[in-house]
Amino acid sequence: MINTIEWIDKKVKIIDQTKLPDGLEYIYCQDVNTLREAICSLKVRGAPALGIAAALGLVLGIQNSSADDYPTFKEEMKKVIDLLASSRPTAVNLFHSLKRMADCAEKNKLKKIEEIKDILEEEALKIIEEDKLCNRRIGKNGASLINDGETILTHCNAGALATADYGTALGIIYTAKEEGKRIKVYTDETRPLLQGARLTAWELLQEGIETVLICDNMAGEVMRQGRIDKVIVGADRVAANGDVANKIGTYSLAVLAKENMIPFYVACPFSSIDLSLLDGKAIPIEQRDVSEVKEILGKRTAPRGVDAYNPAFDITQAKYITGIITERGICEPPYQESLRK
Amino acid sequence: MINTIEWIDKKVKIIDQTKLPDGLEYIYCQDVNTLREAICSLKVRGAPALGIAAALGLVLGIQNSSADDYPTFKEEMKKVIDLLASSRPTAVNLFHSLKRMADCAEKNKLKKIEEIKDILEEEALKIIEEDKLCNRRIGKNGASLINDGETILTHCNAGALATADYGTALGIIYTAKEEGKRIKVYTDETRPLLQGARLTAWELLQEGIETVLICDNMAGEVMRQGRIDKVIVGADRVAANGDVANKIGTYSLAVLAKENMIPFYVACPFSSIDLSLLDGKAIPIEQRDVSEVKEILGKRTAPRGVDAYNPAFDITQAKYITGIITERGICEPPYQESLRK
Repeated sequence: MINTIEWIDKKVKIIDQTKLPDGLEYIYCQDVNTLREAICSLKVRGAPALGIAAALGLVLGIQNSSADDYPTFKEEMKKVIDLLASSRPTAVNLFHSLKRMADCAEKNKLKKIEEIKDILEEEALKIIEEDKLCNRRIGKNGASLINDGETILTHCNAGALATADYGTALGIIYTAKEEGKRIKVYTDETRPLLQGARLTAWELLQEGIETVLICDNMAGEVMRQGRIDKVIVGADRVAANGDVANKIGTYSLAVLAKENMIPFYVACPFSSIDLSLLDGKAIPIEQRDVSEVKEILGKRTAPRGVDAYNPAFDITQAKYITGIITERGICEPPYQESLRK
Repeated sequence: MINTIEWIDKKVKIIDQTKLPDGLEYIYCQDVNTLREAICSLKVRGAPALGIAAALGLVLGIQNSSADDYPTFKEEMKKVIDLLASSRPTAVNLFHSLKRMADCAEKNKLKKIEEIKDILEEEALKIIEEDKLCNRRIGKNGASLINDGETILTHCNAGALATADYGTALGIIYTAKEEGKRIKVYTDETRPLLQGARLTAWELLQEGIETVLICDNMAGEVMRQGRIDKVIVGADRVAANGDVANKIGTYSLAVLAKENMIPFYVACPFSSIDLSLLDGKAIPIEQRDVSEVKEILGKRTAPRGVDAYNPAFDITQAKYITGIITERGICEPPYQESLRK
């Protein structure tokens, strides 16, 4: 499996996902600003990978600190955290990781600064290891729902390129395949940034999984024709009532799946679930530059001067979701109860 | 209003719509093969415009005929008709026009060939004039449904660029504006060929109508947020029960509109209604080259070797459609009865 994000020689090594599917290029981020730019420009993306990037970003940001007392160190750390926290607002994993790192530092504040730095580095590596384990468990849990010969529709990229291992939604497909099941996947191209066409189709081809690329507006018709057995997508944040924020287009898929009586699953680590939020209305939705809608791969598609709208995510209400697959098991409605358990 | 298709100096003058929105370029088709290629490559498109193109194509195809008896002329005419009929399968207007032209020739078969040619030319021009009148009536009928200050969502292009006048779905918006109503339009970009971004947004800007471009997968979320008052789209063919074939993505919009309790209207000339077909299952759906899905404006988006699926149209069942707006009035369910009336 490819390594989307790694910690090597005190640098964050990432695949530059904006270069896929044509070139597999790596970037080595030596400072937090470079990493932040990579996050903002989606060179690294996907909720679990963003959690890892944030943790490693914090390590990068404080590794050259010359502070020799904890209050000074904490002040510097806060600046780095604020910088990273302002990169992308929707995926909760990013905030979750930053809080975990800050708590870890706080717990060790009586230690020497150099020691705290080492502990934080270890904590970040632990987040990577946990994500790998988590992916495997989500894969195992989700694969139990998949039957031999089924066709799955997925959206955006919730695969190896979105995590430290083989992904959430796609991890389920990889596990099902490992279990000997024959699986076919329909992949939405996922405008505006084409993560489905560029990333998911690329990943699935690498893994030898039969893949059919469609435009986003074809998913409904493909479901209506009876070609799809299950829809599985990832999540950027899940509220306590089971409402899900995920890549724009997810809500439409969920409504279309319901209309066609197709089970609709969300796969994510438990860390994507934000029990502090009552429902989806409380999830902040990132609005990205409208040029992404008016252009494709840098080429303008629309007349100059036209207005556009570019929400990066949408909210899918819990009522459309058959189950939320996490490393701890499969939650079913009512989510208010099952998620808390 | 722009002239999408005209008959000038024994040539068919069309806007090359593949060059929009950047350049307003015209093509003069002097022979039926050039026109057929323009139809196949979507230089001219839209169900009503295809009806006109077919009629003018027939005139082009027989204008240099040296036949001096009707059976020979009819034989030549049949070849031209077959050539044009094999261009695009879904929009019924094309077949409707060809049949009308053939019937017209047949009715005048006792006349001299040169005279028949003139009669066919006049008949084709009559089709253009009828389409113009038809657009105005659809506009008037549809505008009665639109209130001041409403926001309309549309898909693909059912405007001036799809007809001889100002369009069907967009004609309604233009009429409402002429009536002094303030209208805002959300336009789906309409992958794979971006008719919404390239053509509809361009047309609406030209007419000074407030337009917001979105990617196809954003339409559901935009509806959920309560931004849309009505959805209005065109149609390529309507079956006797009210099932509608229209640009891929229409079905999804209809389901999403129903889920969000937003009225969903189809606007088309009565000639798009094919009472010979029981329901949508009988409508042939054009499958276009999958490279259109794997590329955008000639630029490859997906990894080499990936499979794709590219239905150009989908079927929206009558149950999702609030009304079908034609030049003869607004048909409401049950369509089985209202369309026949």
